[in-house]
Amino acid sequence: MTVDEGRRITITAIAQEAGVSVPTVSRVLNGRSDVSPQTRERVEELLRRHGYRRRVTRARAGASLIDLVFNDLDSPWAVEIIRGVEDVAHAAGVGTVVSAIHRRSTSTRQWLQNLRTRATDGVILVASDLAPPGYSELRRLNVPMVLVDPAGVPSVDIPTIGATNWAGGLRATEHLLSLGHRRIGFIAGAPQMLCSRARLDGYRAALEAAGLPVADELIRPGDFFHESGFEGTHALLDLPEPPTAIFASSDQMAFGVYEAVRRRGLRVPDDVSVVGFDDLPEARWASPPLTTVRQPLAEMGLLAARTVLRLAQGESLESPRIELSTDLVVRDSSAPLVTG
Amino acid sequence: MTVDEGRRITITAIAQEAGVSVPTVSRVLNGRSDVSPQTRERVEELLRRHGYRRRVTRARAGASLIDLVFNDLDSPWAVEIIRGVEDVAHAAGVGTVVSAIHRRSTSTRQWLQNLRTRATDGVILVASDLAPPGYSELRRLNVPMVLVDPAGVPSVDIPTIGATNWAGGLRATEHLLSLGHRRIGFIAGAPQMLCSRARLDGYRAALEAAGLPVADELIRPGDFFHESGFEGTHALLDLPEPPTAIFASSDQMAFGVYEAVRRRGLRVPDDVSVVGFDDLPEARWASPPLTTVRQPLAEMGLLAARTVLRLAQGESLESPRIELSTDLVVRDSSAPLVTG
Repeated sequence: MTVDEGRRITITAIAQEAGVSVPTVSRVLNGRSDVSPQTRERVEELLRRHGYRRRVTRARAGASLIDLVFNDLDSPWAVEIIRGVEDVAHAAGVGTVVSAIHRRSTSTRQWLQNLRTRATDGVILVASDLAPPGYSELRRLNVPMVLVDPAGVPSVDIPTIGATNWAGGLRATEHLLSLGHRRIGFIAGAPQMLCSRARLDGYRAALEAAGLPVADELIRPGDFFHESGFEGTHALLDLPEPPTAIFASSDQMAFGVYEAVRRRGLRVPDDVSVVGFDDLPEARWASPPLTTVRQPLAEMGLLAARTVLRLAQGESLESPRIELSTDLVVRDSSAPLVTG
Repeated sequence: MTVDEGRRITITAIAQEAGVSVPTVSRVLNGRSDVSPQTRERVEELLRRHGYRRRVTRARAGASLIDLVFNDLDSPWAVEIIRGVEDVAHAAGVGTVVSAIHRRSTSTRQWLQNLRTRATDGVILVASDLAPPGYSELRRLNVPMVLVDPAGVPSVDIPTIGATNWAGGLRATEHLLSLGHRRIGFIAGAPQMLCSRARLDGYRAALEAAGLPVADELIRPGDFFHESGFEGTHALLDLPEPPTAIFASSDQMAFGVYEAVRRRGLRVPDDVSVVGFDDLPEARWASPPLTTVRQPLAEMGLLAARTVLRLAQGESLESPRIELSTDLVVRDSSAPLVTG
């Protein structure tokens, strides 16, 4: 991530080498359409080859905007992350442009097209499934990018802000063990996400550290959504020897656990202890209030905004990947095992 | 709201009358700081007097941005409204700049300052407590404004999109009456909000239409937040003759009702039926899923975005106030009264 600041190439040098005027290079940099495709390609190739960093120019030009891009705005994380980003941006005199691309390439194209018609100081992508053409287009526009990644999106080559998922899985399971639970069900997150694997590994590590077996029957598949928590719980409670506690890999799934427990005429935490993962605002208002692993979503947004503004100033980063620590928040959904 | 399109005054005419250059008038219109206060005042006074509508110019200039302003982003409505606005804006090739002003005048000033450094096609305020200087500043900038108002903010002189709160209060209460409930508790919203009064009046109207008395002891104060639902429920269930159903004026308060009922060892809906108001996403995931009055928040956002973009094009509106209809969503928290 280090850049040799002393040898930064200028627009003038690029223009000379490409045999075009300086305004033409500017037009390419600003993504304007009044440049022939051949010229655009030649200039972009030279910009890339020399590692030209337009960011600094952009920031000076002062778009006074950063872009915050979600797959979908109904993500339970959305509002928390927007809060963090807006806080930093607002204080810096920068507006936060919020967009949803719905994992659709038409929508992504439209968004990139919108970006070209106005400037931006940088882009924050949230757990993004931005198709590869999207990434390369952003790279071509030389826009600073940061990925906020509560879900552990498979590695892309941009700075990433995540959370310590493995440690969170470990803490949640240790908490249930400390309450005396020995049969602890686990409902996994979406299998393609790295964070799902990290949370499961944390769960396994805690059981093994306690000298307990990891029973396959206690591990149910899930996808982070309510319904899979509901179904996984029915499957777990149908076991000949059902668990006395369930650790769900998301708060939404934990609420599905609540509902399955209620439908069976049982109670949380009297009959089944429940721990979630995320600490959405809903966790506090659930009945009973949910014990959960807190991801510092607003803080991740804060840090992402600070990072993208630093990149816009041409600063380099200490590390391309930062993981903020997760934290167990104990509320009323987990209770000591009552034997008898 | 009609405007005489034929007699629109031009910048040139304003410049002549003010005795300044056309670029100076433009600078005033664009809120730039390189104009003397005296000149700014003179030009703004003339713009006002002639009813100059800069919107059209702005829209042509193509800020390609609309501003969406909340008091706080932890408002439970925030993400729903953002979704609606973003949907329309995205399709129109316009970015949605999301801001929170935290009801603080410093924060409002900062936001207005940010607005001056970039263009905007229009501003959508959400249930805003924007201080009066904020409104007049926006009016001076001649930026089209729309207020999205699920809470019934006391009348301000800008186009408003609300919901039918009275009809919602009526429907919720009729629903509980149809299930056989006769003692129905009511937990009110924040007293300074018009919507609180409208919901209460709807509750009263339904009882009176059914020939039932409206008992003061069954009406508890609240403020839309969880805690007041919790406390109101304890007070109601402490009555010598407690209600068999509770209608809370917000979903968050309804979740407070759930928790108070649970703490007393009772169950929803077996012991107490509960109806909320809003239909936040959480209502679906609550346990039991919450019967509630749906405010079409995303649709209100959609309509606000369409309206502000129309104003930006210089169109006039059919009506300065639109109320979208509320709708009862019956889920599992309300059940027939069991007598015995």
